[in-house]
Amino acid sequence: MPKAIYVINPNSSATVTSELDAAVAPLRLPGGPEIRCVTLAEGPPGVESQGDVDRAALAVQAFANAHRGEASAFVIACFSDPGLHGLRETENVPVLGISESAVLTALSIGHSFGVIAILPRSIPRHLRNWGAMGVMQRCAGEIAIGRGVSALADREATLAAMCDAGRRLRDERGAQVLVMGCAGMAPFRQPLQEATGLPVVEPTQAAVAMALGRVQLGW
Amino acid sequence: MPKAIYVINPNSSATVTSELDAAVAPLRLPGGPEIRCVTLAEGPPGVESQGDVDRAALAVQAFANAHRGEASAFVIACFSDPGLHGLRETENVPVLGISESAVLTALSIGHSFGVIAILPRSIPRHLRNWGAMGVMQRCAGEIAIGRGVSALADREATLAAMCDAGRRLRDERGAQVLVMGCAGMAPFRQPLQEATGLPVVEPTQAAVAMALGRVQLGW
Amino acid sequence: MPKAIYVINPNSSATVTSELDAAVAPLRLPGGPEIRCVTLAEGPPGVESQGDVDRAALAVQAFANAHRGEASAFVIACFSDPGLHGLRETENVPVLGISESAVLTALSIGHSFGVIAILPRSIPRHLRNWGAMGVMQRCAGEIAIGRGVSALADREATLAAMCDAGRRLRDERGAQVLVMGCAGMAPFRQPLQEATGLPVVEPTQAAVAMALGRVQLGW
Amino acid sequence: MPKAIYVINPNSSATVTSELDAAVAPLRLPGGPEIRCVTLAEGPPGVESQGDVDRAALAVQAFANAHRGEASAFVIACFSDPGLHGLRETENVPVLGISESAVLTALSIGHSFGVIAILPRSIPRHLRNWGAMGVMQRCAGEIAIGRGVSALADREATLAAMCDAGRRLRDERGAQVLVMGCAGMAPFRQPLQEATGLPVVEPTQAAVAMALGRVQLGW
Amino acid sequence: MPKAIYVINPNSSATVTSELDAAVAPLRLPGGPEIRCVTLAEGPPGVESQGDVDRAALAVQAFANAHRGEASAFVIACFSDPGLHGLRETENVPVLGISESAVLTALSIGHSFGVIAILPRSIPRHLRNWGAMGVMQRCAGEIAIGRGVSALADREATLAAMCDAGRRLRDERGAQVLVMGCAGMAPFRQPLQEATGLPVVEPTQAAVAMALGRVQLGW
Amino acid sequence: MPKAIYVINPNSSATVTSELDAAVAPLRLPGGPEIRCVTLAEGPPGVESQGDVDRAALAVQAFANAHRGEASAFVIACFSDPGLHGLRETENVPVLGISESAVLTALSIGHSFGVIAILPRSIPRHLRNWGAMGVMQRCAGEIAIGRGVSALADREATLAAMCDAGRRLRDERGAQVLVMGCAGMAPFRQPLQEATGLPVVEPTQAAVAMALGRVQLGW
Repeated sequence: MPKAIYVINPNSSATVTSELDAAVAPLRLPGGPEIRCVTLAEGPPGVESQGDVDRAALAVQAFANAHRGEASAFVIACFSDPGLHGLRETENVPVLGISESAVLTALSIGHSFGVIAILPRSIPRHLRNWGAMGVMQRCAGEIAIGRGVSALADREATLAAMCDAGRRLRDERGAQVLVMGCAGMAPFRQPLQEATGLPVVEPTQAAVAMALGRVQLGW
Repeated sequence: MPKAIYVINPNSSATVTSELDAAVAPLRLPGGPEIRCVTLAEGPPGVESQGDVDRAALAVQAFANAHRGEASAFVIACFSDPGLHGLRETENVPVLGISESAVLTALSIGHSFGVIAILPRSIPRHLRNWGAMGVMQRCAGEIAIGRGVSALADREATLAAMCDAGRRLRDERGAQVLVMGCAGMAPFRQPLQEATGLPVVEPTQAAVAMALGRVQLGW
Repeated sequence: MPKAIYVINPNSSATVTSELDAAVAPLRLPGGPEIRCVTLAEGPPGVESQGDVDRAALAVQAFANAHRGEASAFVIACFSDPGLHGLRETENVPVLGISESAVLTALSIGHSFGVIAILPRSIPRHLRNWGAMGVMQRCAGEIAIGRGVSALADREATLAAMCDAGRRLRDERGAQVLVMGCAGMAPFRQPLQEATGLPVVEPTQAAVAMALGRVQLGW
Repeated sequence: MPKAIYVINPNSSATVTSELDAAVAPLRLPGGPEIRCVTLAEGPPGVESQGDVDRAALAVQAFANAHRGEASAFVIACFSDPGLHGLRETENVPVLGISESAVLTALSIGHSFGVIAILPRSIPRHLRNWGAMGVMQRCAGEIAIGRGVSALADREATLAAMCDAGRRLRDERGAQVLVMGCAGMAPFRQPLQEATGLPVVEPTQAAVAMALGRVQLGW
Repeated sequence: MPKAIYVINPNSSATVTSELDAAVAPLRLPGGPEIRCVTLAEGPPGVESQGDVDRAALAVQAFANAHRGEASAFVIACFSDPGLHGLRETENVPVLGISESAVLTALSIGHSFGVIAILPRSIPRHLRNWGAMGVMQRCAGEIAIGRGVSALADREATLAAMCDAGRRLRDERGAQVLVMGCAGMAPFRQPLQEATGLPVVEPTQAAVAMALGRVQLGW
Repeated sequence: MPKAIYVINPNSSATVTSELDAAVAPLRLPGGPEIRCVTLAEGPPGVESQGDVDRAALAVQAFANAHRGEASAFVIACFSDPGLHGLRETENVPVLGISESAVLTALSIGHSFGVIAILPRSIPRHLRNWGAMGVMQRCAGEIAIGRGVSALADREATLAAMCDAGRRLRDERGAQVLVMGCAGMAPFRQPLQEATGLPVVEPTQAAVAMALGRVQLGW
């Protein structure tokens, strides 16, 4: 089996994984690296707390240990980037996290980025990440839509809430580019962009794009 | 059993735990909270990598889950603060990490703090923490003594290396206060202070002191 | 007379001093350091302007000069920390300011701290302090209740105004922990916490707790 | 003619352009976007001053105006990113600058990035850019090799100087990843990496990789 | 002809230049430097886009090249400071930009500065400048009045919009001093100050004042 | 007596005052504001500690109270800016501090500023000021020459020490402009500039220049 960019969904939802798979399809090119999206069946249904993130970090590391020889890169497809820095220490291939990649990509699109989070309690966790990244000066703010896993299943209401959060980030906080603060919502990117008039970064796409480049360049 | 401040040593070294126990003795006061130092036997011999930190986070959380009812506070006695933010989400008592507490305490002692790390590869991990804490402006720098676990056993050479790192932080980076970047080295605090002429923060003592205050105040 | 932690109220209000005295009672432990709260009778009725702070700095220094031999630590119980850095240069014992200690403590409780100030014109003065401390990245904002000394005497209205400011800091600025920006209001801590659902730091308690730890540790 | 990613070399050196062309070859994929490297014949021989950058901005804009219909993205291949923000306002396709992209990519590889500049007088210009990007907290420092255009022709001496600068950035400033602060030096990436033991980001490759991803994703 | 401080209006509006001329009149002193306000006839009617700024940079540089021998200082009277850093590299006399000077002056008047911009799309450009200047911590925010060139001609409505923006910067963002984010509006300074109760910095006056001092001091 | 810009030397040295007087001579213009340099006889011989600064603040305030009606502006000519923010609250005229003004002026001359301090223990005090000003990102560093008042009397050795500090700030810290961190040393500005090849800001001149502009503009 040729090596692939592994896109690791650390929650146990195969639905999310298939969303990821569809989202990265445009990055599959003849002659380019294969991209494999995988579900960590042992993961939680959703990563919602710091404890979930801590557990996911180990699951992601275990996956990397088991698939090291088959990977040309690892992408961690959870917006808290569980295991990111651990894998960077153990793997010899590029390791990208979707929240880090999304923010870095946003920095090349608009000046101040706003983040649409799912749950309010994720915001401090994300702020710690932006602080560790040293990019808080560019962060316009973060607003949560406050919908749990079951509420997310109502796609229409979820999109409406994201559009509302996006408009508030634009109008009240001065965001010039939006980052979707979760994995598996690529279909909402375009409508969110239209509703807000702002460019929108879908984090898994952003991360796999960075991985693709790194793999092709061999660094 | 009355509740206690649990000081959790997430590595498996009982020697380190007994060092912690001695270090916090001055904070045991009649009428004050009990302070119990515990070893996580299932932990690694030392926390040296991000992977160790990630694994330690789960072990610390498991300990908290098991001892929740007996704890008036938790102190995580590893300079990478494994599990700190996870416990803050799950526990109703104060949770302190020794690296966070050490830096906060140092900020009340001197303007620019310098950190003496054990291993070079810990430095980026610590810098991510200072960034997440938003205190990089006060960080004069961090220098590693580059000694592995066995080399640390040579106490005299270790102290000499720490003094050398401290003098370099003072002279080359402008540090006005030093933070010892590891647990279990309280006996070196005084000689390091004398060798450098700078105040020195011992992290476990700093964290337990903060826990003591919080417990007494009931917040 | 054994040495004590001196808690210096730099305004002339004995009422405030007795509030301080009650607030720090839980930190008085058998075998622990004595804590003495003193009023600087020559101080202004309240510290409301930069000029008041400048004058208070000298009064605090004069007090330290006169009581040096009896002090195991000095706590400056005014939210502008008058004389803090002066005493740190002249005294060989720990010197803590209540605003600095409150913010450092808040940083170990929630990610973004909000400050409830008394007067609007204090805000720039506080912001200069957070800037000097290098912690502006963690400051969600500061809101003043705009009540003068006489208006503060109406306790009920004052608490209501503080709760309102706290809710605005939480909802409009994203504060995850609140700092009470004045001395002598410890009884409002608990109701403010209940009204806002956020943890609340009372600054004199925070500072004396840090002093207690430092005195016990002998550094 | 199908649309292409235009990689614009704003200096008049066809040699540099052919270096760029070779450097981005691994990013040419069957089914992926064409990548065309062009020389702005009217540009200066090298971009060495702020005035050169200002003039290059207009030349780049003129090129974009003339080739708008043929471009799926524009990459500005000069380490001062001339015209970057102008093109972002006028073009409907992704616009990437090589210095911005290099730094963003470096942020996903190591904690503190060091930059190897060609001329000392470029350093303040670059620092303004890192400041505008809001990433100074991650910048370990920048060191210039101080070689003019003719001196650069001596490849061996240039590489030696870059390796020396890289080692100083690593040892004296704590850089954990290096950014090559000029276009057209991709062949030095690997030897520089070997000489320093640090990952090295080649800026044109970094920018074209980001452009490739954006073009494929259609955003 | 004796040397003069050249105040360069990079847009083609002679009306704006005569406003500048009137604004700096109080800085013309017997025995002091002459102050000459000039219009760059080849400039755009107004500088509204990054492209306008880029073109203006060249025009300003061309003017400096042509008048080098007659200038004791150059002031660039456009709020995007076109050509500022280019001229600093080529000229041996002080070079001041009005936006940089306005912000520096504001920093000596109030803690948090708010900027009243003309067009929304200028805001990211300004934010890049404040970021490059490293003063974002002092920036309370920026609000645009959103009036194009023709709409600006309605002086009364323009002033009303500026007062409204100023009040919002004061009340919603905590600005303690206002900066007028455009040239040629000195007559609005006093009424804006009265309407908001905040000190207001007029940028061209601020820059020429700094130039006057530098010229007199000979450095 | 017409109003004047009062330049207040808060130490008791008339020699320093006459140095100030000579330094600001070029800013005395026919038709411009009078500039009066005064000595606070009750001040300390030199301002060397935080305590000296605190006492000087009161002396400066007392002077302002006594001369309010005669002042068109106040300049506080001590590099710790004693009383700066107090006077800003009480006076209706411009109040400038020499360290603040020097740094703001330096920001318009070079990217990274280095400060030459007299005594090492002043450095943390200055760093608190740069932090409060929010300009640490532009501070390359600060180096003290470590000479007490009597040692300063040896002009030649003092200048040599300043040149040495300046060269170190340039070579080791990357300073592009130097700030002289004390009052009364204007004659050293030019030789220091020649010795280092860097522009040098003399703080009293910088502050009086800013005051001159503000007075002429009436704001």
